[in-house]
Amino acid sequence: MAEQKKMVEAITPMDEDFAKWYTDIVKKAELMDYSSVRGCMVIEPYGYAIWENIQKDLDTRFKKTGHVNVYMPMLIPESLLQKEKDHVEGFAPEVAWVTQGGGEKLAERLCIRPTSEVLFCEHYQKVINSYRDLPKLYNQWCSVMRWEKTTRPFLRSSEFLWQEGHTMHETAEEAREETLRMLHVYADFYRESLAIPAVIGRKTEKEKFAGALETYTVEPMMHNGVALQGGTSHYFGDGFAKSFGITFTGRDNTLQHPHQTSWGVSTRMIGAIIMVHGDDNGLVLPPAIAPIQVAIVPVAQHKPGVLEKARELQAQLAETYRVKLDDSAQSPGWKFSQYEMLGVPLRLEIGPKDIEKNQCVLVRRDNREKIFVPLDRLSEAVAEGLQAVYDGMYAKALENLKAKTHYAHNHEEFLDIAKNKPGFINAMWCGDTACEEKLKEETGGVKSRCIPFEEEHISDVCVCCGKPAKHHVVWGRQY
Amino acid sequence: MAEQKKMVEAITPMDEDFAKWYTDIVKKAELMDYSSVRGCMVIEPYGYAIWENIQKDLDTRFKKTGHVNVYMPMLIPESLLQKEKDHVEGFAPEVAWVTQGGGEKLAERLCIRPTSEVLFCEHYQKVINSYRDLPKLYNQWCSVMRWEKTTRPFLRSSEFLWQEGHTMHETAEEAREETLRMLHVYADFYRESLAIPAVIGRKTEKEKFAGALETYTVEPMMHNGVALQGGTSHYFGDGFAKSFGITFTGRDNTLQHPHQTSWGVSTRMIGAIIMVHGDDNGLVLPPAIAPIQVAIVPVAQHKPGVLEKARELQAQLAETYRVKLDDSAQSPGWKFSQYEMLGVPLRLEIGPKDIEKNQCVLVRRDNREKIFVPLDRLSEAVAEGLQAVYDGMYAKALENLKAKTHYAHNHEEFLDIAKNKPGFINAMWCGDTACEEKLKEETGGVKSRCIPFEEEHISDVCVCCGKPAKHHVVWGRQY
Repeated sequence: MAEQKKMVEAITPMDEDFAKWYTDIVKKAELMDYSSVRGCMVIEPYGYAIWENIQKDLDTRFKKTGHVNVYMPMLIPESLLQKEKDHVEGFAPEVAWVTQGGGEKLAERLCIRPTSEVLFCEHYQKVINSYRDLPKLYNQWCSVMRWEKTTRPFLRSSEFLWQEGHTMHETAEEAREETLRMLHVYADFYRESLAIPAVIGRKTEKEKFAGALETYTVEPMMHNGVALQGGTSHYFGDGFAKSFGITFTGRDNTLQHPHQTSWGVSTRMIGAIIMVHGDDNGLVLPPAIAPIQVAIVPVAQHKPGVLEKARELQAQLAETYRVKLDDSAQSPGWKFSQYEMLGVPLRLEIGPKDIEKNQCVLVRRDNREKIFVPLDRLSEAVAEGLQAVYDGMYAKALENLKAKTHYAHNHEEFLDIAKNKPGFINAMWCGDTACEEKLKEETGGVKSRCIPFEEEHISDVCVCCGKPAKHHVVWGRQY
Repeated sequence: MAEQKKMVEAITPMDEDFAKWYTDIVKKAELMDYSSVRGCMVIEPYGYAIWENIQKDLDTRFKKTGHVNVYMPMLIPESLLQKEKDHVEGFAPEVAWVTQGGGEKLAERLCIRPTSEVLFCEHYQKVINSYRDLPKLYNQWCSVMRWEKTTRPFLRSSEFLWQEGHTMHETAEEAREETLRMLHVYADFYRESLAIPAVIGRKTEKEKFAGALETYTVEPMMHNGVALQGGTSHYFGDGFAKSFGITFTGRDNTLQHPHQTSWGVSTRMIGAIIMVHGDDNGLVLPPAIAPIQVAIVPVAQHKPGVLEKARELQAQLAETYRVKLDDSAQSPGWKFSQYEMLGVPLRLEIGPKDIEKNQCVLVRRDNREKIFVPLDRLSEAVAEGLQAVYDGMYAKALENLKAKTHYAHNHEEFLDIAKNKPGFINAMWCGDTACEEKLKEETGGVKSRCIPFEEEHISDVCVCCGKPAKHHVVWGRQY
């Protein structure tokens, strides 16, 4: 009991200190550990198991949309990085440089990839010759490195794991379609597998990816109202293709440049899961990516028949679900806290009295609802229970998103909301980067999240300068 | 037809130039491409699909034996690498050093991991406290970097993909058991999934891993008689644990050091698959890891009903197998060559005459045997066909291994075989490193592969110095 109390008490309540609550969960649930390499993390087994489930789910979605996986080198020669001007300006300041190899000083510096556009372009330049070679729909799962000044577990680290899709198309139209297709793959994944609603839309000029013509984004809101850039999809036009001399013979026999996209999501999604769904008892994991979907806790397990029955249920459920039976010597109360901490969607309790009644108890992680289940319909009840947990989690996240979404009709209102109400602010914008910069400065960090796909008419003029409005923008602070 | 001829003619026959035959296949089957980063490769979709199947298969075997996956940083501070003396001596000369990050010179150099023992030890030092925390059975899938002077696709590259298991145990006995368990997991995988027989055994002092007490190895023989170190498993004792201050409170309440293992296999396995099974028509892939297990080639596909039937068979087989229907405009002959080049285990031909007879033709890749199959037993026939391809491949590889395995009873015989007969040489050894070095020099590269688990008594004295023999050693050239 001492250990149980210690564990439960050790999480800082989220209302007291959200940042500390977050790192408490990360540490207590053993998702990651710090390392002696500044800004790099050790992803521990439970955290990595979440990532493996995310990978499997997304990889299936990528393959269904025709993509194949490849692997590119982790190093980029400086001269290659410099081939696209905007791109190198965006990334050069934050890369790590290899200058020595095999005991010798290198003739040219090599950076550890911060992203791999230039490597894909170098390869595509060699393998694309005809319109018959298009589209190229490549994806890569790997780690990348960006030399961040301040880091935070999963949300911002010098090294992180991600996937990066890089595609080449015959026409601009096809490339634009791909850009939006993959944005929707991300949005669907957030909604269907992570139970996370999000605002989706286009980034402003100021916020778009270095070298891209257009950047689209999935912007989920964390429980505290702060945004996380959850996934981005970029349309490049033929800019990189021109810089890298990538050409193909078109259907009309003319030499053309292909049109390019890239899109990526990373281990920061684990941070989103924690901050959207977690509570003061720990993680709350969406069933689709939970390493353990059902934790079986035997009650009075020393009594005859209890463990046998628990093992029988485990074997039955393990055919369909990821199940863990905890038959350790810890008390049931300790185990209850432990699997709540780990965010396991359903807890299954079974004791002598349940066995007498040929039933068990399912407890939902999201709302602690107890469901008494006749054993002969256990499989259906678990399916229903997991669906109910998903529904409950999504509804709660959507409610939070709605409750913390505000509208500002003028400058004063904008500053007032930014100061007093956490969350997103919907407000009109003239299209001028100067206004974005001014609002960010005035509010100490509120930036444009995106121009949402479904723009509303909130007012006639820009919320900052009062000039005629061009776009509805969703604004917010970000991780 | 021009294209077909060109493709087939372009592979150099293996008997003419084995090295060129190898790189021809690698390029023609589009497994990898070179990059502008010296010694680093682009793994193309078909090559990467083979790696994905290898990963899935091995990962299942690792999880069945109780292992979990984690992710460690890709960089190692110089001071951390230096903590274990033998280890740093082995690896420091071949690492790549990061000396600049985020525009600044770093206070300490960081190397890109050549292997991750020290990172795992740093983490284990923090998380291991009691015997209850043991064993730790961690594995990692990642890329590593070793600054190789001469490189060769898949076989030796500066960067390669691999898995590295790192485990910690309560007793030396448990750690030794783990070391051998994982060696056998590798040997089983080579035999069962890659259809590759291998010699397994212990490395001599000279050939073992930097910092290990014992190294065990799986040594398959390539078609030309040259060995490939196919996978290694290391027992470390508590040497690293002492260097890193890793201790735990034992069952007897004393402070103890845990006992350690590590084990790894890499993308060089793809090289082994090519060089063990390939022939002058291209790749021959073991069914378990072939990205396409059955290639359906319609004959006279413009005739009514042919494509419909081909699609019907595709849909039927796709429930169980990885199937590709090629309905492109290329000729059947071109397609036959293409899927032979790609090493697809079974080709399914279906044309108007087959449809009339309610049959199709299966052609084995390994021996081109044609099997006429009534359509109502297609699924069983494909299962049998894939098994027959596996059996044929394994038998052929075993035959090659046996045919190129020789016995040397004295020094003269050893030198004669080394000069005139490609393959492995079984011969006795006194245990002295000087004899290994002398034999290597005299033969221009024949090294000890391992002391096999099942030692034979070939002669009484060392094949080199004539002193009393201690061990039976398998010798051979290596990639």
